[in-house]
Amino acid sequence: MGIDDVLARIRPVDSRAQESARLRQEQLTKPAGSLGRLEELSIQLAGISGTEQPALHGKTVIVAAADHGVVAQGVTGYPQEVTAQMVRNFLAGGAAINAMARRAGVELVVVDAGLAAPLPGHPTLRVIGAGRGTADMARGPAMSRAQAEQCVRAGIRLALEAAESGADIIGAGEMGIGNTTASSAITAALTGRPPSETTGRGTGRNEAEMAHKIAVVERALEVNRPDPDDGLDVLAKVGGFEIGVLAGVVLGAALARRVVVLDGFVSTAAGLIAYSLCPDISGYVVASHLSVEPGHRIALSHLGLRPLLDLDMRLGEGTGAVLAMGLIEAAAACLSEMATFADAGVSGGASEEQD
Amino acid sequence: MGIDDVLARIRPVDSRAQESARLRQEQLTKPAGSLGRLEELSIQLAGISGTEQPALHGKTVIVAAADHGVVAQGVTGYPQEVTAQMVRNFLAGGAAINAMARRAGVELVVVDAGLAAPLPGHPTLRVIGAGRGTADMARGPAMSRAQAEQCVRAGIRLALEAAESGADIIGAGEMGIGNTTASSAITAALTGRPPSETTGRGTGRNEAEMAHKIAVVERALEVNRPDPDDGLDVLAKVGGFEIGVLAGVVLGAALARRVVVLDGFVSTAAGLIAYSLCPDISGYVVASHLSVEPGHRIALSHLGLRPLLDLDMRLGEGTGAVLAMGLIEAAAACLSEMATFADAGVSGGASEEQD
Repeated sequence: MGIDDVLARIRPVDSRAQESARLRQEQLTKPAGSLGRLEELSIQLAGISGTEQPALHGKTVIVAAADHGVVAQGVTGYPQEVTAQMVRNFLAGGAAINAMARRAGVELVVVDAGLAAPLPGHPTLRVIGAGRGTADMARGPAMSRAQAEQCVRAGIRLALEAAESGADIIGAGEMGIGNTTASSAITAALTGRPPSETTGRGTGRNEAEMAHKIAVVERALEVNRPDPDDGLDVLAKVGGFEIGVLAGVVLGAALARRVVVLDGFVSTAAGLIAYSLCPDISGYVVASHLSVEPGHRIALSHLGLRPLLDLDMRLGEGTGAVLAMGLIEAAAACLSEMATFADAGVSGGASEEQD
Repeated sequence: MGIDDVLARIRPVDSRAQESARLRQEQLTKPAGSLGRLEELSIQLAGISGTEQPALHGKTVIVAAADHGVVAQGVTGYPQEVTAQMVRNFLAGGAAINAMARRAGVELVVVDAGLAAPLPGHPTLRVIGAGRGTADMARGPAMSRAQAEQCVRAGIRLALEAAESGADIIGAGEMGIGNTTASSAITAALTGRPPSETTGRGTGRNEAEMAHKIAVVERALEVNRPDPDDGLDVLAKVGGFEIGVLAGVVLGAALARRVVVLDGFVSTAAGLIAYSLCPDISGYVVASHLSVEPGHRIALSHLGLRPLLDLDMRLGEGTGAVLAMGLIEAAAACLSEMATFADAGVSGGASEEQD
């Protein structure tokens, strides 16, 4: 299925199921509104699944990794090989995402979207093969349009496969040294905000390094002039292979009518690309947490999303997405499983004196 | 075991285990500090369990319910019988706490700490029998000191039993029409803040009702003059049976060296009483969420706690506590199960470019 076919087939969430869920929430044995944001979330889940009693079972997090040519500009100060080292760590089960996914019963899919050097074959590693790291976006496009499309198509396929394997919640995680630089450029291109606002300090970077990183993002945008009305052009010119895959994951999840959970800044930049291709995806997306990267808030706001968690995290890997899955499941369970006032013989609206 | 024996036997958390955990966090395969508040939380968990690799298995939430004589003052506008109706709903599995606890694999213990009318016997209901609802605190003490002690002892016992049955995380939940009024009085008494600041609107209460609720809290404090240096006196004069049980749960959990998770305003008021009896409990306590009740922020601040979640919830029942348990488990899993840089062959401190 081509990308255009997918875009044409994505439907908005089901507003009738949302309305039924809203009415159901008012009849459940609790003061109206007392579950706060979980109630809003449950109504969204009803719209996604098309039923007022959504049942969420399987959970999958797709973690896409790739390398970035822009590291040649000295935007990271950390060696590129860490991307591949961390992918090996994912496959060996030693990273934060492994510990969290195991605990929460979330299936982990690790994707080589375009590492600089291929890893030895591994039975659970999915290899996209879009390229061996992107080109340096400060000097020209990060990738060709064909590569961008290849990544997005691969992401769509991964999401559809996850849905077919039983995932009702799909998380989007990533790993890639240099990918906050690409995300800053994408966020600037698609929101119209200046790189000085969308670019973050990273860990331990001083003022001079920070100014350099902003200058690199500015140069990438000047050199490439990405078209803000064309998400694939933005992805090709200042994106990354893993970001393209995650943009595809968002589109595929929306096509399959599954909840897709963004993680931090990088996966939200992927969400921006998906949104620019198909605004209807926004109803399927949940923002898990607020990263400390300043561009994240800008990207979330552009998507109209408010994150569930604010825990000063900035790891990526899908860790925030997996943490939020527990809240999403709880929201669905309350809507679908709670008794109504009538069922339970509880005086309606009468228990407001709880905290 | 008497309350004084328990207070004498509670120890501060293990600072050596905390220091080991802090060092371990720096060696794990992620940028230093990138898990944000989960790292702080994991260090607390190490201190509680006395090991740098805490393993959390069983989870229990203890939901204590009781009635409040102060409802005679018209502070709620909702019928007292809802307390018992909701306890029946808990026992039948139809409340929000049931849906959330089932989903998250949390054992639920339902406690009749002092309902106005006893419920028919139920195999899983724990009955304390401290009294049939408290007396009206606006006209005299809510309960005798002996009743207060009975509730606290019962709560200690419940926490120790939960710990013996395998609970590593113990949540504190409650149900009781009128209990935010008691919690406002407790919070004012133990923090020194005026009732106008510790008293909340509840659901749908207008300005006049709100002013009346504040006046009732003021009167309860004037009539009873609770001793701010004696938590049991505060509990007896302006507390509630379920609040006494939960104060005991906090003490018992600290004695058993288990994490105890507060829910909203009412369980945090119970935490204030436990803290006034034994300040060392603070190291064992995690604040799950920030309730919309204004007194909650004051009570949390007095305990030096910062809540993990802020989801506009105000239900009680232990729902916030159960939601936070997933984050607590994730924090422990990362600390205990992640590979170190050396183990995984990852270049140290080098993956800061994640979001």
